[in-house]
Formats: sequence, C-alpha cells, structure tokens
Amino acid sequence: MHQPDEATSRRSFLGLAGAAAAGSATLLQVMTGAVPATAAAATDGLTAPAPRVGDGRTVAVLGAGPAGLAAALRFTEAGYRVTVLEAQGRVGGRTLTARPGDRISEVWADGSVRSQTCGFDHGLYLNLGAGRIPYHHQRVIDFCRRLKVPLEPYVHTSTANLFQTDKAWRGAPRPNRRIANDTRGHLAQLLARAVPKATPGVDALTPAQRDRLTGLLVEFGALTEQEKEYVGSTRSGLAKTPTVTQPEEAVDPLLLKDLLASGFWQHGFYQDAELHWHTTSFQPVGGMDTTWRRAAAALPAGTVRFNAPVNAVELDGTGVKVGWTEDGAERSERFDYCLSNIPVSVLHRQVTLRGFTDDFRSAVQGTPFAAACKVGWQANRRFWESERYQIFGGISRIDHEITQIWYPSNDYFSPTDKGTLTGAYNSYRNGERLGDRPHEERLGVARAAATKLHDEMASNAIVPDALGMSIAWHKVPHQLGAWADWTPEVPEHKKLYSTLIYPQGQDNFFVIGDQVSALPGWQEGALMSAEWAYEWIVNGKRAVRAPVHQVPDARALTTGER
Amino acid sequence: MHQPDEATSRRSFLGLAGAAAAGSATLLQVMTGAVPATAAAATDGLTAPAPRVGDGRTVAVLGAGPAGLAAALRFTEAGYRVTVLEAQGRVGGRTLTARPGDRISEVWADGSVRSQTCGFDHGLYLNLGAGRIPYHHQRVIDFCRRLKVPLEPYVHTSTANLFQTDKAWRGAPRPNRRIANDTRGHLAQLLARAVPKATPGVDALTPAQRDRLTGLLVEFGALTEQEKEYVGSTRSGLAKTPTVTQPEEAVDPLLLKDLLASGFWQHGFYQDAELHWHTTSFQPVGGMDTTWRRAAAALPAGTVRFNAPVNAVELDGTGVKVGWTEDGAERSERFDYCLSNIPVSVLHRQVTLRGFTDDFRSAVQGTPFAAACKVGWQANRRFWESERYQIFGGISRIDHEITQIWYPSNDYFSPTDKGTLTGAYNSYRNGERLGDRPHEERLGVARAAATKLHDEMASNAIVPDALGMSIAWHKVPHQLGAWADWTPEVPEHKKLYSTLIYPQGQDNFFVIGDQVSALPGWQEGALMSAEWAYEWIVNGKRAVRAPVHQVPDARALTTGER
Repeated sequence: MHQPDEATSRRSFLGLAGAAAAGSATLLQVMTGAVPATAAAATDGLTAPAPRVGDGRTVAVLGAGPAGLAAALRFTEAGYRVTVLEAQGRVGGRTLTARPGDRISEVWADGSVRSQTCGFDHGLYLNLGAGRIPYHHQRVIDFCRRLKVPLEPYVHTSTANLFQTDKAWRGAPRPNRRIANDTRGHLAQLLARAVPKATPGVDALTPAQRDRLTGLLVEFGALTEQEKEYVGSTRSGLAKTPTVTQPEEAVDPLLLKDLLASGFWQHGFYQDAELHWHTTSFQPVGGMDTTWRRAAAALPAGTVRFNAPVNAVELDGTGVKVGWTEDGAERSERFDYCLSNIPVSVLHRQVTLRGFTDDFRSAVQGTPFAAACKVGWQANRRFWESERYQIFGGISRIDHEITQIWYPSNDYFSPTDKGTLTGAYNSYRNGERLGDRPHEERLGVARAAATKLHDEMASNAIVPDALGMSIAWHKVPHQLGAWADWTPEVPEHKKLYSTLIYPQGQDNFFVIGDQVSALPGWQEGALMSAEWAYEWIVNGKRAVRAPVHQVPDARALTTGER
Repeated sequence: MHQPDEATSRRSFLGLAGAAAAGSATLLQVMTGAVPATAAAATDGLTAPAPRVGDGRTVAVLGAGPAGLAAALRFTEAGYRVTVLEAQGRVGGRTLTARPGDRISEVWADGSVRSQTCGFDHGLYLNLGAGRIPYHHQRVIDFCRRLKVPLEPYVHTSTANLFQTDKAWRGAPRPNRRIANDTRGHLAQLLARAVPKATPGVDALTPAQRDRLTGLLVEFGALTEQEKEYVGSTRSGLAKTPTVTQPEEAVDPLLLKDLLASGFWQHGFYQDAELHWHTTSFQPVGGMDTTWRRAAAALPAGTVRFNAPVNAVELDGTGVKVGWTEDGAERSERFDYCLSNIPVSVLHRQVTLRGFTDDFRSAVQGTPFAAACKVGWQANRRFWESERYQIFGGISRIDHEITQIWYPSNDYFSPTDKGTLTGAYNSYRNGERLGDRPHEERLGVARAAATKLHDEMASNAIVPDALGMSIAWHKVPHQLGAWADWTPEVPEHKKLYSTLIYPQGQDNFFVIGDQVSALPGWQEGALMSAEWAYEWIVNGKRAVRAPVHQVPDARALTTGER
C-alpha cells in the first residue's frame, strides 16, 4: 500500500506485536504458567522484547472480540495482569463461524429471543461474519503469521460468477467474463473513435501519445487491429467447446444497450477494483474464528472469563471499576486500565456508565450502527462446481434484496460433494429488510432469488431448509449492529468519532474495536484500535487530542459502493 | 464457456473418461491385478461402462506425456492391451516438476549435453513446464477430479504484483493496482468527456442511454460524481498506512503521459483478461506432474516401459510395427494400433518412418515448434511476502528479455520462510535469446533483471546461484520445442495440421498430444487429442477428412498476446 519508506513507521508496532504474539515458546510458557508472564518476553528471539512496563498493573478487557484479544495478548506480554470479560461462551465477536451444533440467537424488537441451531454435516462450516483478509491488511496478516494460523486464498471473483437482473437478457444470468470483457470492448471502441477528434483531454495529447493511447485501447478492449472495432472476443468465453477440429470461437458479444439496461455496475460488479477486495485475499483454514480461538489459547489460562456480561463501568480516579455478572452473581473489581471492546451500540443500552463526560455519553449514544444479514446454506451437491457452471469460489451478483451469493473458497472438489454457500449477504436498507423477516421467510426469499442463478437452488433435497442459517447482526445480542456507520457527509460524526477514540478518565479507559478505527467492519480496524490504545498506555503516547480531519466512510469501506 | 445446452455434446467423452479414470475401486483392481482389466469397468458405478470393444487388441502409446497417459487409461479400461513406451525415466512430458536431486538435461547445437541437478531443499519444487489449469479446461479438471488429484488455487494476478520498465518512472517498478486503476480512471474520464459530444458510436445512444453510460463510467473509473473527473482513487493504493486518526488517503495517481510512455500493455499486463488466464485457476498440490504420476500409477503394472526410446515406426497393413531400444537392446513389436505422443519435432529427427504418405512426412517435417525458457530459483527468504512487497502469488511483469517473474501460489507464510520463484518465463524470440545463453549466463541475466523489481534478488545468500535452475524447452531431448507453433496467418499450416490430425495407414496410427489440438501448449489440448483418437477408434468415429477451417493461434493461446 504505502511505499517502502513508510513501512518503518509501523515497525515499532510490529515489534511489539511480535513480542506479544509470536515466539511460541514464550506464549506457551506464559500459557502454561511455566514462567511468569513478566519473564517471558526475554526468551523471544524474534523481535526486541517489549518494555516490561506493566509491572503487574491490571487491565480489564471488556469483550473477547479481535481488538480485545489482540490487546489482551499485548498487555500480557508487556507484564500487565489482564482479565478479559466476555459476555458469551465463545471468543471472536463478529468473526463468527457456524459449525454443526452451534446456536445462533437474535433478540427481536418485541423482546423475543429466536434461535437456530446449525445442522451442517460434520466438517462443514460457514463464516457468518467477517469473511476475508486482504493482503494489505498487514496487521491481521502479521497476527496470523505469528500465531501460525493457516491461511488459504479467498477467491473474490471468478469470471464464471454470474450476474442476474430482470432488466436485461430476459432475466437470464450472464457470466462475469461476458459482462466485464464486452463492456471493456465497447468502452474502448467508443474512446478509440473519440481519439482522432478534438475531445477535451485527448486534445492535450501529442500525436505520438494519441497513437499510444490507441494501442492501449486495442489491447485493453480487444479491438480489431485495423478498424479499432469491438466485434467480440474469446475473453468473454466460447461459443462451442473446442475440439481438435473446432478452434476457439468467441461467444457473441453482449450489446452495449443491454449492458446499459442491466445496470450491472450498480450491483457490486466492480467491487474487486476497490482496495479491500483486491486479489490476493485470504481466509483462515477451518473458519474465520480460528485466529481468535488461537489468540485466546495463547493467553494465560483463566484470562478469558466467559458468560460474564459487563453491566457497569465507573471511572474511579486512577482506576476503573467494572461490574459484571458471572455464575449468577454480581461481581465488581477495580482495574488500573479498562479497554472496552463492547460495541458502543451495546454499551449505551446495557452498561451503566458512571463518571464519564457528557460528551462521551453523547458519543456512545449517538454512534449509528449499520444493519447486515447473511444467509447460509449447506448444499448436498457442489452443483456450482459442475461442468454446467464451472464456478470455483467468488461471488455472484443479483439485482435483488439478497445482493450476492458466495461460493466456498475451500474444499474444492470435495469427495463428499457437499459444501456451504453464503446465500445472501447484504447491509444497510437491504440488510434491514431481510433482517425484519423471520428466519424461514429469509430462507424463502434467498432461495427464490438464488433460483434465478441456479435452478438447483429450488430443490430442498440439494439445499435443505433445515440446513439453512440466517443472521441479522443488528439483532444479535452483545453486537446490535454490523459496524459503526461513520459517514463523512454527516458533520456531527467527526465530533462523536473524535470523542470516542481518545481515552476517558485519567487516560485509563479506552473504547477499542473496529468501531473506533479507520476500517469499520474489518479485523484490521480492530487491530489498529488495539495498537492505538497499547501505544497510548505502554509507550506513553500522548497525542494532542485533535479532532480527526475526516471520519472513515463506513459504507464505502464495507460494501465497496462509492 | 459454452452455454449449458452445449455441455451435453461432451457428455459421451466424460462418460468414457469416467469409465477410464474414475471409480477408484475399478482402477485399483486393475492396477493391482485383482481383476482382469476387461472385467473392471462393470464395477464402475459412476458412469455407464465403456463398451468392451478392445477385446484384447493391442495399442502402442509412444510417450508417457499427458495425451499418452490419458489414452492409455482409456484404452485399458475399454479392454485393449496397452503398452506405453517412454523414452525417459519419468512420466509427464512437459509437465515437468523439478524436485531435489532431479537432473535436467539439454542438447546443444554442437551436440553437447549440458545438465543441471536440482539442489532445492527437501519439500521445495518448481513447475518448469505447464504451470496452471484454468477452470474451463474441463477435461483436465475432470481428469484430476476422477484421479483425486488435489488441486489448489493458482493466483494469476495480485494487485501487489509489479511492472517495471526503464521507459517511465525513472525505472522504478509500479504495482499492478496503480497501473490498472489509474488507467481505468484516465480512460473513463476521457470517454466521459466525449459522451456529451456527437462522437461516433455515442451519437447512436439515446439521452437516457448516455446518462447510464456516464453512470457506468463513474463506477468503472472511480470518477468524481460531479465533474466526472479522475483525481486518483484508493483503488490504486494508499499514501499512508491508516491508523485510528489517519483515514485512508489515495496515493497520487500515475499520470496518463507516464502510463502511455511506459507501454505497460505491451508486456502481458492484461493477460488475465484473456480466457486461459481467467480466475479461478488451479495447480496440483505438490507439483504439476502429480496428475501424471497418478495417471501412470492407475495403469496396470508394467504398462509403462521406461527408458525405451522409439526409433522406428512402420505401417504394416492392419498393424503398426514399432522399434525401440530398451536395456541396451533393439526391440520391435507389432501392434494393432499406435498412438504417437512423440512431439513431431522429435519424430522427424529421431524416428525412422516407413509406409507413411509423403503428405504425412512433409507435415511432420514442416510443423514449426516454438522456443520457451524458464528460470527457477530457490529463495531462502520469502521476501516478496514481507510487508515491503505484500505479494502473495501472481506474476510481476518486466520490459526485459525475462518477461515475467512468478511468485508461488503455495506454501504462503511457510514456516521455513523458503520458497521457489519462477525467475523468467519467456517464449518465441525472447525464449530463443535466453535459451542460447549457457545456464550460468541465464541466471545472471535473470538475476540482474529481477533486481530491478526486488533488490533482494541481488543477494546470492537469499537467492543462491547454486539453487538456480533453467530450462530451454527447445533444447530438451525428447521434446525439442515448447509447443507446435500453429499460425493462422501462414496458409500452409492448414494443410500440415489437417494432415497430422487424421489417422494414417489403415486408421491405426495417430499423432496425439497438444501439438495436434485446438490448444497447443496446454494439458487440455493433450486430453482433447487423446479423446479424438479414442472416439475415432473405439466409437467408430469416421469423420470426413475435411481440412480444418482454421488452425489454432498458438502464440495467442500460449502467451495471451493478440
């Protein structure tokens, strides 16, 4: 991303991350109690040991999401005594991976709790939350590398993926390769004809540059060498399967008027041009929560206390008093520092805050969270990998509430021939709409839409309702939202964000998580935030509390929409 | 590729391939001799059994390359008695995977034989020949599926890959993401300005269509909503690493004049738009020859006779007499059928042909073969995966004789931190030039060029000369070329190709291999050719021997050049 000379600016963090997360001997020793945490870092030969500044001071981490666990590892290595209070019985927050027997619950507006149990076959799983790690999310990549989390490529786009709309081609889906390449061809031809004219912009080019521009367009759009025309291309696929006597023959090009009528570009078709969806992307082998299970396992035993929802936080001079319930009892403890990985959407509803400024309370209350839904299916046949579709990973797009269908980037050609599909992934208005439907109705809607792409989706034998999952993140207890919906166009957001990122009390209470980072909705944002709090406390960082000059554009960063 | 309704046209082949290659019980039984080959197909429940037409008739397959082995499996399953005569001590032909201890030899014009021994560390390997399997090469995909060859994604392009030329940016490499997206931006802006004008092509659009076209361009090129200008985009990367207080900031866009001066599009930059380089691609886990080792292992023991170079083929009425050397002795045997997977570049030089027509002899002599070279390195550090480059797979491009550098699509984040790079892959004139250099000089040239992309490449400690490999396929014994160089623009090629694809003698001698297929240089072509010969013999196919209407464009099909 950044140029090489800027890489050094993050070195100190990576050194610390290294001290915290790498050196399996170190972590293992800490984990098993073989050596006291304060002695462990010296055995880490990979990086310079972190300063042993903690000296037994206590840190409460509220929530075992990515930011909470990353912070817990770092503070532990630096010699702090860390307690992680997690409301649920699992770690990972929104990096939820559904596996057989897992129970997913939602709280509805009427107060009812509605649950589903994952009925997938043994060995199948589906990421219901975070789904990919872009190569330039170097904090996450580094974290996985040091924790030895095995990563495999996540295929974002295959040219066999489909796009469907009722507005063109009589509703028949068209593969990515045709839409992408025929569009390039048409655009290149139009521009090639404009080049010899005195079009603004082109007129600033020298004749030699215009010649080169034409050469570029021929290559870019697969135009004919002579007439600079687009007459179709094998880039879009073949009319017939080649044989010894049948050379390749391009499929007929899609017409520009149909491409324009389809509105394909309004449906995430160019998402992979946006930075966070670039190739190469990764996913942890076995499910996205693998990273966080490993992170939790690398902490000293007993650090994470499960089923311990926090209900009160009080700034208490040089400390922070935290109240929670555990084993049916109310508990309370005072810590030197408190890092709250609790989504502020939950914090303002379920945690009593004492001693905080009005500005902070307003920020906690005023931060909007986005809705997002996923539907997941176990499919008893990997029909998408059959000769009929030839789809191996990637995302099909549809002009419909469900927005997209993900094909698995793992277990290709599985001998069981079974696999899991993400049958819908949407957010904002579409996420609200789908989330307002009961589970069965979500499945029905997702099935009906997916059938427009694959008629196999109509079959309850291939894709059984009983093996369908759905999740509306804004209804999930302890989450109540998909991501903080920061919007540069809303002037108040600058103040809210700038309030939340700086520590409260005597600089001993921090909100952490992707919610207070430049990357809402991404694990990289969570690590960025843990790094920020760590630097502030451990390295004595005392930034001027200047308001940020711009809040992140959450919608663009999470959907790729411009 | 083809539309769903065309898929059925290949069903019969797949059925036969299934009978031949699938049904592990069947193959295992045949392989272990538990049942006679002629009885085996009936136990195959996956597909209709192949007709048992062989009835003990004999087939000689000359060469254990992909086409030869695929044919051997099929004919064995169909009840023929098959003998594969392989000149070398290994199977797979140009799907050569170099592993520690492997010896690579070349024969030079002066008759000298020059050899290298692969010194890679245990567990490392490099594909020196075929390197990828596109998703639409369904014959290969199907073959691997049925032989249970594990496949993993081959990443063709990462946006972190580099392009370097001395013609722009003072010779500094630029990442794919900047070149690709800044070009899109500039092209979109130029066209957006032409839209309101009466540009030919645009003038045929209605005002509503022009509006939609503008909407498409804004999305396609990341133009500003208001002015339809390209002012840079985070698609091209970031100026700084984001932090909690540093939102994403786009890197400065490359200037159109520099992009035009660089000539990047002339160096394979858009190769992944061409059909055979589309995502998703695969590679067999452990090396490309895995497929062919498994295919050979699935044949009855003794079917493949190694170190048995053929030196004579005689059409002998209803049979074919084949002469070869084995264990220092001359041998000869008469077969009912003979399928020659020997490259015709070798056939005309090293095999005495008797009883063939003059047309056939002329075709064998007249078929041109292309040159191609690869250089491979063991790297003792996966520096390309470091934070500095963030490259995970894909290909960097360079305006230089070496053309391209491939990064491995396997063993990402390997704990050994070692890996293999393809340090050059070129063909045609550049392949001839590099191939004419002695091995040490090839390494020197490749190292010097690669250093323009990565200064680590200058280090003999990181990339040791002693662990460098090189291969010039046109100098490899028993290959003498990279692929048959069919060229539609050369009128004689139609006759040569049309002669070679049809059987000789009493329809009992066939040339097979990618050399006589619509896909020279690809394993899919090899299987296509085996399928063609099989259909002809077993299913009684008697096509009219019409000349093909067009020969494959080998250069376009192997390089992606238009």
